[in-house]
Amino acid sequence: MSSNSPIRLALFGAGRIGQVHAHNIAASPETELVVIADPFIEGAQKLADATSAEAVSSPEEVFSRDDIDGVVIGSPTSTHVDLITRAVEKGLAVLCEKPIDLDIETVRACHNAIGDRSSQVMLGFNRRFDPSFAAVQRRVVEGEIGNLEQVVIISRDPAPAPRDYIAGSGGIFRDMTIHDLDMARFFVPDIVEVTASGSNVFSEEIASFNDYDSAVVTLRGSKGELVNIVNSRHCAFGYDQRLEAFGEGGMLTASNVGPTTVKKFSRTGTELGDPHMPFFLERYAQAYLAELETFANGIRNKEPFSPNFEDGVIALELANAAVESAASGRAISVAPIAAKA
Amino acid sequence: MSSNSPIRLALFGAGRIGQVHAHNIAASPETELVVIADPFIEGAQKLADATSAEAVSSPEEVFSRDDIDGVVIGSPTSTHVDLITRAVEKGLAVLCEKPIDLDIETVRACHNAIGDRSSQVMLGFNRRFDPSFAAVQRRVVEGEIGNLEQVVIISRDPAPAPRDYIAGSGGIFRDMTIHDLDMARFFVPDIVEVTASGSNVFSEEIASFNDYDSAVVTLRGSKGELVNIVNSRHCAFGYDQRLEAFGEGGMLTASNVGPTTVKKFSRTGTELGDPHMPFFLERYAQAYLAELETFANGIRNKEPFSPNFEDGVIALELANAAVESAASGRAISVAPIAAKA
Amino acid sequence: MSSNSPIRLALFGAGRIGQVHAHNIAASPETELVVIADPFIEGAQKLADATSAEAVSSPEEVFSRDDIDGVVIGSPTSTHVDLITRAVEKGLAVLCEKPIDLDIETVRACHNAIGDRSSQVMLGFNRRFDPSFAAVQRRVVEGEIGNLEQVVIISRDPAPAPRDYIAGSGGIFRDMTIHDLDMARFFVPDIVEVTASGSNVFSEEIASFNDYDSAVVTLRGSKGELVNIVNSRHCAFGYDQRLEAFGEGGMLTASNVGPTTVKKFSRTGTELGDPHMPFFLERYAQAYLAELETFANGIRNKEPFSPNFEDGVIALELANAAVESAASGRAISVAPIAAKA
Amino acid sequence: MSSNSPIRLALFGAGRIGQVHAHNIAASPETELVVIADPFIEGAQKLADATSAEAVSSPEEVFSRDDIDGVVIGSPTSTHVDLITRAVEKGLAVLCEKPIDLDIETVRACHNAIGDRSSQVMLGFNRRFDPSFAAVQRRVVEGEIGNLEQVVIISRDPAPAPRDYIAGSGGIFRDMTIHDLDMARFFVPDIVEVTASGSNVFSEEIASFNDYDSAVVTLRGSKGELVNIVNSRHCAFGYDQRLEAFGEGGMLTASNVGPTTVKKFSRTGTELGDPHMPFFLERYAQAYLAELETFANGIRNKEPFSPNFEDGVIALELANAAVESAASGRAISVAPIAAKA
Repeated sequence: MSSNSPIRLALFGAGRIGQVHAHNIAASPETELVVIADPFIEGAQKLADATSAEAVSSPEEVFSRDDIDGVVIGSPTSTHVDLITRAVEKGLAVLCEKPIDLDIETVRACHNAIGDRSSQVMLGFNRRFDPSFAAVQRRVVEGEIGNLEQVVIISRDPAPAPRDYIAGSGGIFRDMTIHDLDMARFFVPDIVEVTASGSNVFSEEIASFNDYDSAVVTLRGSKGELVNIVNSRHCAFGYDQRLEAFGEGGMLTASNVGPTTVKKFSRTGTELGDPHMPFFLERYAQAYLAELETFANGIRNKEPFSPNFEDGVIALELANAAVESAASGRAISVAPIAAKA
Repeated sequence: MSSNSPIRLALFGAGRIGQVHAHNIAASPETELVVIADPFIEGAQKLADATSAEAVSSPEEVFSRDDIDGVVIGSPTSTHVDLITRAVEKGLAVLCEKPIDLDIETVRACHNAIGDRSSQVMLGFNRRFDPSFAAVQRRVVEGEIGNLEQVVIISRDPAPAPRDYIAGSGGIFRDMTIHDLDMARFFVPDIVEVTASGSNVFSEEIASFNDYDSAVVTLRGSKGELVNIVNSRHCAFGYDQRLEAFGEGGMLTASNVGPTTVKKFSRTGTELGDPHMPFFLERYAQAYLAELETFANGIRNKEPFSPNFEDGVIALELANAAVESAASGRAISVAPIAAKA
Repeated sequence: MSSNSPIRLALFGAGRIGQVHAHNIAASPETELVVIADPFIEGAQKLADATSAEAVSSPEEVFSRDDIDGVVIGSPTSTHVDLITRAVEKGLAVLCEKPIDLDIETVRACHNAIGDRSSQVMLGFNRRFDPSFAAVQRRVVEGEIGNLEQVVIISRDPAPAPRDYIAGSGGIFRDMTIHDLDMARFFVPDIVEVTASGSNVFSEEIASFNDYDSAVVTLRGSKGELVNIVNSRHCAFGYDQRLEAFGEGGMLTASNVGPTTVKKFSRTGTELGDPHMPFFLERYAQAYLAELETFANGIRNKEPFSPNFEDGVIALELANAAVESAASGRAISVAPIAAKA
Repeated sequence: MSSNSPIRLALFGAGRIGQVHAHNIAASPETELVVIADPFIEGAQKLADATSAEAVSSPEEVFSRDDIDGVVIGSPTSTHVDLITRAVEKGLAVLCEKPIDLDIETVRACHNAIGDRSSQVMLGFNRRFDPSFAAVQRRVVEGEIGNLEQVVIISRDPAPAPRDYIAGSGGIFRDMTIHDLDMARFFVPDIVEVTASGSNVFSEEIASFNDYDSAVVTLRGSKGELVNIVNSRHCAFGYDQRLEAFGEGGMLTASNVGPTTVKKFSRTGTELGDPHMPFFLERYAQAYLAELETFANGIRNKEPFSPNFEDGVIALELANAAVESAASGRAISVAPIAAKA
């Protein structure tokens, strides 16, 4: 490509997250949406019409082209490893939604298969691109609060996903906490120990899948940092996404985002704000845009991607350690994992 | 008195504000409540019993004593001038609730009568002693925001006073705004112009007294500072007392005080706080204590009082100017008043 | 146009505000930017290149076309009346930046000239489209706080405009306060009295133009509502844009917007937030988008525009009344103006 | 005692916490401070002079009296068990600072020795009386957020205690976390599992005592509730004491308390608040008063005390479980303990 022409992208998956990526790619002057692939061709066609792209039903129709610079993978998790592998073999850059796969052996096999070409892959841990979380992390790295000692992450979904989704989700730690585990590593890259507790306090349905509806995870970093994650699969007041980074010199916090700054004062109370943004599509709209921009810049400038394939591997290994800790009641050492990565 | 013994005080008035002063005087190790005078002797006796003081029904029974250092005047406004005059003639220090009198000629006559002994009088503009307002003022004086350019004062009572009180109040500017006019002078002592607008938006009763239920006042300081006062005789969410001081280098604000820091997050909204403190006795409880402490220290250390008699005169003159401005629709120059004071 | 095709627009002016409109028009699927006119053709061409539009240097090259549905006027104030008149004569919809003109006689002549076709004109009072201000106004109209009694608007620019701009601005009331006067009318459409005070506290340059650098305006509505506007031409902590609407049942407030939710806690203090958005382009980015969308929908659905031409006339008349009040020290009745409109 | 006369109290310990209790007892109309016992008789005498009490150097001089209703124990931890035992044998009510003792066997022996008379003992877990924490707990109990599911407690001291104090403190869990463990039980009385992680991130001195400077504790309640405690022995921005209670219907939070409501806005940022209250004496001043009032009311009305002796036992057992968990990396079941209590 020329240095001025937009980055040409293909998109796998025309579902909820695929639609976010499609519209962002189409709206950015930096990127061009060439083709959308989805076996549900009607959905692909509708999205393609709205974004001036072409619709196809099979991956082959994407990989046979030679006019694209990268692919965005927003299709079901079970397709990720295959699509990643084929894309990197073609020399294409990849932005893949998390997780790479629910099975760590499959992920490792993929890692071995693609070898150094894993550097072509960027993982879609979108929260790293949230303006507030990113600002806190940047300021911590710049030393604004001195040595980082503790991180507290509160992360609650507004409501449980549908039954079918829960059934195939891999459990709360691999499906939901995995985002928070990556956020933990955004601040403390070297995690050496995982302690987790799961609980069932409100959903018999989730319990019926031997899954938890609530969880707490404590991570220990290699310098003694303690990271605390609090999760719930429901939250009456909306999507609850907050964190605080505590260091020797002070604390930086990032809190929830509302649609307006309006506050109400009445006989029954004061400072009543709007409910929070309902869920990740609204709350992280800016983050998805910034993520895409980073991906496009990485392709254009041939810079290493972050978060990368290894970040995806480690997040899954931490999730697996959390599963093991919650089941066994023991702290799980993960030092070798971090070392390997 | 010896330097260690408490300041011995007499109190006039056993009503609502008298009770506040009585309990504060009795509780402080710096002060001792000797006697309470109120023609309603049952009330005086009850309050005296609770505070280990003596109760009397007439001022004479106070002024005939020679064991007191000062008096606190919390009796009806119509008694203030007489009690001030007699107290200063006896050489006693005086802490007098605002206003000195509703009639400026009466106030001036008193001022002439007591002459230099007006320095024995401290005026009960309690809000100057509120920790937050006092901190803002101190930091402005210390230059933290550079030249002061604008002050905005929001001041709303929770509900109108009873009909009888309103009838004899002297009107919103002399009764309610007068506190805000003094607060304005706490920040901008030299006021040169008053512009006021009154309105009747909710109370036919108040309108029937040719009084306003709502008002806005704009003051101009001698250096061009603009002070803005917004008043209402009612407020659904409690006692609303806020201010902001704006200068070339920034802004300092003080807001309302709640009983706790509790916030509620629910399906209907977020960050819902407690209603504000209901009224001045609760909101300014700390201020009344600090005011008394300042009075006692002034007596002990023979230091000039602030706010003083002249501050009481000027506040009333500004209130009168506001009355005139609201009636005439003209800005009223008050330069000579400030100069005289 | 067909019901599905985008609204085709021409843009006058390729300066700062023109660029905002050009990018918004180009990015929206609802609108298409056809042509940009600016006598500074290099600027027009550059902007046209970035937005896939055509560039021309004269209005004639716009008005001779028959492929446009409406025009957006972002050129200098002195061109507004001419462009509005020519556009409505061609049957085009108009979105015109405020003010219509600085001279009320010129505005009235235009109004007379275009007659009923003034309904084709929408005025660019962008703040009505700010999500927070709009939410407060909607909730007030829906009765959430009962009868509206008071509105307080704080509006401070981050820094004075350049000397040349100030010289031709028409003064603080017509240039800056006019936005707040319209915001006042968003809440209290029928204003019957204007009282204003101007002051010079920091800028000798502004004083040299017989203009004020600070101002306070009090408006009275036909039902006794009091609206208070506080203005400054500078503000150390950024663009300060807040309001509160106070009614018999409570209060709704809208405050400033920061780029993140990050707060810092350190030895020197707590809850330190980011500086506010620097100026109107950033603060009102969402408002400009919503304004354009409203304009496009109005064209498509043949609905009346709001704010409209008359809102522009009244805002200027209120600004003129403020000028007169500040100069004379008298409250200025504007009842006839509102009645006429 | 008569129903009207004040509760007569003796105080053990004239140190920092003893002084708080002495002044509160002396100031309250409900209580009377009769005698202060401290082997450091000069300190006792000085405090007695300031509070109109008698000073003695030995416990015998207290227990030989028959004019007291209860004792407040603020002397060193090593004296608690002996003083509790002798006081309850005399039939006196006891308000004892935490912990009962650092050694659980000593505590149990005391418990066995005093038997049912443990009901005469109230434990000084002062935080239960903080207005904000108490309001959250009351509202949770009243069902305002439905079933309680999660509690997050952030608790950081401003700076480590002196070396000598640390040496004899019993470690972070028994000395500092014990307050948070009791706070956890204020919300979730039946704790069945303790998981703890300790870390050394800033203090070599604390590490030299085989103690942690930072810790995270996760508790599980009998209904699956998860409670999370985050501790640090230092905090740059003051005493950090917050909590949130999360239930199926919403969340209630209580945050830090500052001395004023003042916020500063300047070129470097916005909403800068005062540093938090420096430490527990300031932050919990109101809580100590309310605790004493509850103690006095309990004596007067012969009502059961809360928190009581058993709450002190359980808090220590939970702290011991945290010590064991942090050392072993295992979740520690504490079901039998709660059952026993």
